[in-house]
Amino acid sequence: MTTYTAAGVDIAAAEENVRRIGGHVRSTHGPQVLGDFGAFAGLFHLRDVRDPVLVASTDGVGSKVLLGLQLGRHDVLGRDLVNLSVDDVLTTGARPLFFLDYVGLHAVDHVVMEALVGGMAAACRANGCALLGGETAQLPELYAPGHLDLVGTVVGVVERSALIDGSTVAPGDRVWALPSTGLHTNGFSLARKLVSTLDLAIDPDGRLGQSLADALMAPHPSYYSTLAPLLPDLKAIAHITGGGVPGNLPRVLPDSVSVELDWGAWPVPPIFALLQDLGNLTFDEMLRVFNLGLGLIFVMPPSLDPRERCPAALEVGRVVARQDQRVALLR
Amino acid sequence: MTTYTAAGVDIAAAEENVRRIGGHVRSTHGPQVLGDFGAFAGLFHLRDVRDPVLVASTDGVGSKVLLGLQLGRHDVLGRDLVNLSVDDVLTTGARPLFFLDYVGLHAVDHVVMEALVGGMAAACRANGCALLGGETAQLPELYAPGHLDLVGTVVGVVERSALIDGSTVAPGDRVWALPSTGLHTNGFSLARKLVSTLDLAIDPDGRLGQSLADALMAPHPSYYSTLAPLLPDLKAIAHITGGGVPGNLPRVLPDSVSVELDWGAWPVPPIFALLQDLGNLTFDEMLRVFNLGLGLIFVMPPSLDPRERCPAALEVGRVVARQDQRVALLR
Repeated sequence: MTTYTAAGVDIAAAEENVRRIGGHVRSTHGPQVLGDFGAFAGLFHLRDVRDPVLVASTDGVGSKVLLGLQLGRHDVLGRDLVNLSVDDVLTTGARPLFFLDYVGLHAVDHVVMEALVGGMAAACRANGCALLGGETAQLPELYAPGHLDLVGTVVGVVERSALIDGSTVAPGDRVWALPSTGLHTNGFSLARKLVSTLDLAIDPDGRLGQSLADALMAPHPSYYSTLAPLLPDLKAIAHITGGGVPGNLPRVLPDSVSVELDWGAWPVPPIFALLQDLGNLTFDEMLRVFNLGLGLIFVMPPSLDPRERCPAALEVGRVVARQDQRVALLR
Repeated sequence: MTTYTAAGVDIAAAEENVRRIGGHVRSTHGPQVLGDFGAFAGLFHLRDVRDPVLVASTDGVGSKVLLGLQLGRHDVLGRDLVNLSVDDVLTTGARPLFFLDYVGLHAVDHVVMEALVGGMAAACRANGCALLGGETAQLPELYAPGHLDLVGTVVGVVERSALIDGSTVAPGDRVWALPSTGLHTNGFSLARKLVSTLDLAIDPDGRLGQSLADALMAPHPSYYSTLAPLLPDLKAIAHITGGGVPGNLPRVLPDSVSVELDWGAWPVPPIFALLQDLGNLTFDEMLRVFNLGLGLIFVMPPSLDPRERCPAALEVGRVVARQDQRVALLR
């Protein structure tokens, strides 16, 4: 007789996994979550929205997962997974409602799973969103021992009348940013190659002020609670992810405008200069791969100043009539 | 200089991928989808629901992905991914609104991606749901050449007053089923081991009526359109997935009842007997791993007959007062 366990699926480990992560999952559930963890599907009662637009995003953490696995920072990967999709959904003005995760792995390691799901649950609580469901898939032929991939989906909601789509952006508008904490979850294929021969436990030349591991694994922040008080006054929001500022800011601008950014108007985390030196990279390539300190960029009318409601906001540039370049970095 | 491509990310291939799959994605978009493919997040205008409960599920196709890759049946994997989550969401009475996908892979192969996304889009159209977003992640150190994992998320909606939760199920209720097409997306870790030395291109002993490959790769059907006319009269719905009938039917039953099923009341696809013979498996193990022909089970009051509105429905048993066994199979 062939048992199911012998075929590569450890059902007891899967059941123990569900028991262990249940507390983390339930810690994110408010009264809008109906039913209990473990049903066929998660149930979320949508309330207090007149004309709802649902806003959804699915993503993974890219090759940051490999660095996180190597360094055992599974909790950071869990936080990153929630926050990067919360920030994508936020670009429309939406607040996050719920999150679902998928973890594909070689075999269930309970310490790893608790760190991953604990990180996800902590980020969900901080964003006021529910961890509504998930799947842990043991696929030993697809994932090498110790390897895993993780995928998160965030669903948010915005009143249709409050949808932010960039359509009213016009020359004269002011451009603001919220600072990044480092690479967030982008540029890791390149960054990992550049640091592959270095000791990640130290600060290579003293300029980071922390270990290389800590600088690279700085969590992807959620900008939701910081930006929420400003949402009624925002014309456009861009989340600076893969492709950097030139690859992301134009996605939310009308064809009729460009943006000028003033280099020096925001702090650039020192990890970026270190990576540039290690790879002898051009500034243009840096700009197209990394966020260079700009985590999220937003556009407001010239009469408004966001800093009273959002002290972290930095004025970084202005909207101008359309130029050849959609984003000009004035240095 | 280190280019980003040299670090393992082919940006041109990623952009060509977005261009190729765009037509498939847009073919699923009705007027409720706002904005265009390629934004930071997908937008879905929720209309005509008074008191909405959102119902969500994230899942992968399990180790069926390995068989699908081996056989080049990527279109089936795409269909499976949509339908298995649509059926999970359906257990609450919800209709699917939108779907998002994640594909993690070694490198983008345009033929593979078009087959995968084409399969997803076809299933989305058949379910009346929108392919609202997705991510293709090139992770060459995580996925071996030719390997990939895929993850799908379905969000549906049901009026709170129409939510199906099994709470009214009582002795005397009739139990019905919709037949499965085969293994659907469960039991493949075991099934692949059992057939590992066989030629999948043939019908091993003539009882399948099709090749072993075709029998194993039969798509996971969506039961949404078949079951939709009955939803107002249903007391409970169970999707028979991993764990078989004993692992899934009790999840939607009140503690006060059990179910008796009449073996012989539904057709059992011949692939199951073949797998049982190959592994010399006990009937009990078969029942706990495979669906054995029961794709979806639902409970109705004794006065109602679903067959006029749903000709595919088969009466398979009845609800009785609680016994030791939650599900008794009468043979």
